[in-house]
Amino acid sequence: MGEFELIRHYFAAAPCAQVGEGVVQGIGDDCALLAVPAGEQLAISTDTLVAGVHFPDPCDPFLLGQRALAVAASDLAAMGATPIGFTLALTLPHAEPVWLEGFARGLNRMAQGCGLTLLGGDTTRGPLSLTLTVFGRVPAGQALTRKGAQPGELLCVGGPLGDGAAALPLVLGQQQEAPEIAAPLLARYWSPEPQLSLGLALRGKASAALDVSDGLLADCGHIATASGVALRVERDKLPLSSAVRALLDEAAAWQCALSGGDDYVLAFTLPAEHLSALQADGWPIQVIGRVEEGQGVQLVDRAGQAITPPARGYQHFGSGGD
Amino acid sequence: MGEFELIRHYFAAAPCAQVGEGVVQGIGDDCALLAVPAGEQLAISTDTLVAGVHFPDPCDPFLLGQRALAVAASDLAAMGATPIGFTLALTLPHAEPVWLEGFARGLNRMAQGCGLTLLGGDTTRGPLSLTLTVFGRVPAGQALTRKGAQPGELLCVGGPLGDGAAALPLVLGQQQEAPEIAAPLLARYWSPEPQLSLGLALRGKASAALDVSDGLLADCGHIATASGVALRVERDKLPLSSAVRALLDEAAAWQCALSGGDDYVLAFTLPAEHLSALQADGWPIQVIGRVEEGQGVQLVDRAGQAITPPARGYQHFGSGGD
Repeated sequence: MGEFELIRHYFAAAPCAQVGEGVVQGIGDDCALLAVPAGEQLAISTDTLVAGVHFPDPCDPFLLGQRALAVAASDLAAMGATPIGFTLALTLPHAEPVWLEGFARGLNRMAQGCGLTLLGGDTTRGPLSLTLTVFGRVPAGQALTRKGAQPGELLCVGGPLGDGAAALPLVLGQQQEAPEIAAPLLARYWSPEPQLSLGLALRGKASAALDVSDGLLADCGHIATASGVALRVERDKLPLSSAVRALLDEAAAWQCALSGGDDYVLAFTLPAEHLSALQADGWPIQVIGRVEEGQGVQLVDRAGQAITPPARGYQHFGSGGD
Repeated sequence: MGEFELIRHYFAAAPCAQVGEGVVQGIGDDCALLAVPAGEQLAISTDTLVAGVHFPDPCDPFLLGQRALAVAASDLAAMGATPIGFTLALTLPHAEPVWLEGFARGLNRMAQGCGLTLLGGDTTRGPLSLTLTVFGRVPAGQALTRKGAQPGELLCVGGPLGDGAAALPLVLGQQQEAPEIAAPLLARYWSPEPQLSLGLALRGKASAALDVSDGLLADCGHIATASGVALRVERDKLPLSSAVRALLDEAAAWQCALSGGDDYVLAFTLPAEHLSALQADGWPIQVIGRVEEGQGVQLVDRAGQAITPPARGYQHFGSGGD
């Protein structure tokens, strides 16, 4: 048995590969088989992470395993889908037991936290990269897409913005900070929590949703375009974590919140009548603006005056990466 | 818009991305959405192809697009699944229009031939590799797995064996041959035809099935292990194409047929009572052996004497690749 065949057996024996609900056939045949309950649809999303483009190389394999699955699962949260499972295509230069053991532990931990079963995949020799495809289920017609926002609704987010971008210099070792500042930001970067429960709570309530991965303004642009509306973002209402406030001045914090990426909190539009009940249930929802007639995204200050936003979007952490 | 964002728009506009049957949401949201008919299950398979490990680099992008999807779709054929769609995770060093145009044409052609809709994916910068995840549907309980073979049944294949391995020196430019010999082998290598229709015809008839990708003996070993039976393979019954017969002497042809890979024909076990009806319907089924009590795979000659098989399995085309 070759070393890569051994890796396949290793993953097949991992705790997260034990067949979960809805999984008829897991690892070990030509295909996995999923049972989708009558009246439900299957949600599917694929993400690739390349060493040196999407994560530093080398990095802690436990953290990489955790983060890779969290980033993929966040797309299920954004659709309001209940997690089922995932496939892992892992390409690596050579099979190193210590690396694999750490990676599998991180993957297991996030998989079990999210309720995702490892269904199969492929392990190949080559430059380090990972492609994860995640699967969830959602009642027909109840998926949260990007295209239902209506003028008059609220624009909301599910948590603080800017942590991902603020963490980046720490992740890359370009900046050192005291542990009480660095630790929460590094945790947010390496172990983002996909807002799966919030996604479920928003089913039938939010009119459009996505997860903030490219930066708030760029992602709001996706909702505005898909829904054929304008989104007005009030800069002073952006929720910032205490770690970001401690690390950065106000202008830099806003820039991270508006144009950084990797936050993986949900951004969504909501008819105002649903807000108080959701907040009363304890969901950490922050209103940051409003849906209007028109198109595009407008950033305004406290007085309602338009502000030219900082550079939009986010090209991952490497220069020129995609 | 960055060059990789442009690629995403390019694929979203491809003919094979036009929403097909069962596809509720294609490219353009956080997740794709599939409707799986009541009483059916979803079959899923993932394959990664790495440049220099699984295909020569450089190579014709049209042929690569065609082959990558065919290899993935072959796993749907092996389960007896009706194709629905696929995701494409494409990592490439830079966005080169001529390359992309060729690749997309090859992908489109195979997608339309197989009835597969491009549902989404990811495009990233990095060393050239592709991960395709394919989706199909199959009535609950009717998927062809590896584990139902019973002693007394026939062992069959759906077409000639050894073409993939015999083509390899031609693909790699290590050997030149007259076009009438080289052309059919190169065609089999670059454009294998996933036996999707045969897979459907075998539903409810074949007791175990897979597609021959690792080499016949290695793949028969998978059925034997999963089913808890022995498989007896009769060497002289192995179907060989006229191109393989023209290119190789008998011993080399058998070696390619037994231990080469990349044939992507179905191998399956079949209760004998189904054979004549399937052959009468025109399916190119060849009986190559029998299921017996026991374990493992035994190769025998015309007289029924055991033969020591050549080296098993197949480590892709590169040395030490996986």
